[in-house]
Amino acid sequence: MEPRISIVTLAVDDLDRQAAFYEAMGLTRHRIRDGVAFFQMGGAILGLFPRDSAEEDSGVRFGEGVSKVYLAYNTRSDAEVNEVLALSESSGGHIVKPAGRAFWGGWYGYFADPEGNLWEVAHNPDFPIDAGGRISLPA
Amino acid sequence: MEPRISIVTLAVDDLDRQAAFYEAMGLTRHRIRDGVAFFQMGGAILGLFPRDSAEEDSGVRFGEGVSKVYLAYNTRSDAEVNEVLALSESSGGHIVKPAGRAFWGGWYGYFADPEGNLWEVAHNPDFPIDAGGRISLPA
Repeated sequence: MEPRISIVTLAVDDLDRQAAFYEAMGLTRHRIRDGVAFFQMGGAILGLFPRDSAEEDSGVRFGEGVSKVYLAYNTRSDAEVNEVLALSESSGGHIVKPAGRAFWGGWYGYFADPEGNLWEVAHNPDFPIDAGGRISLPA
Repeated sequence: MEPRISIVTLAVDDLDRQAAFYEAMGLTRHRIRDGVAFFQMGGAILGLFPRDSAEEDSGVRFGEGVSKVYLAYNTRSDAEVNEVLALSESSGGHIVKPAGRAFWGGWYGYFADPEGNLWEVAHNPDFPIDAGGRISLPA
């Protein structure tokens, strides 16, 4: 297995509502076919796929409640953390944890999308982000 | 929000067991501090963080069962799908759906890690992968 995550899929209850949220966050929806929404996220892809379709395709029944698999959006500044959290609220999500100082020294908070999927938003100067948005662990 | 997912975190019950699985899959664990495992995944990061720590940090209580947020590893060939699925089983996970032909034309299957987190493994010639592992949606 080469080191990559190609696609992160959110199994969603309301595809249009979730897609509208991520578009309001500033992302561009690519319409390849009906019944699925894709967003190019740098060198990876975010997919929104109806829960019943995802369960039928995988043969797996998903659990209820907030997913134990969650995402982080790392920023280039403390101010950008505040901006992204505010944008999540005006886009139809909500702030789960307001921005504050992290024990590891950075500035961070959490939001949830309209279906409760959790995103951490963090400025971590120890994890550099290049011009193309690629993040690196410290050497 | 720029188009990127910086970190995908799995809230885990058994950090050592989960880290050992992903190492057996061929990934390299970076030890920055105790109580967390990080893997550099191209321009993103995979994090394993104990569930109680993640709940305390976010203030969110995670649900039970299989996560509605799931991951895909796209390959460069049909054969690589078979190889990665077989590797998941020998590494301590299990094959959820054996490899087969997809309605969208590719070759794919699913595995679960030792705590049931779902990964799709897919060869989708319509989504090109460059030498660095970056995947792209069709134009």
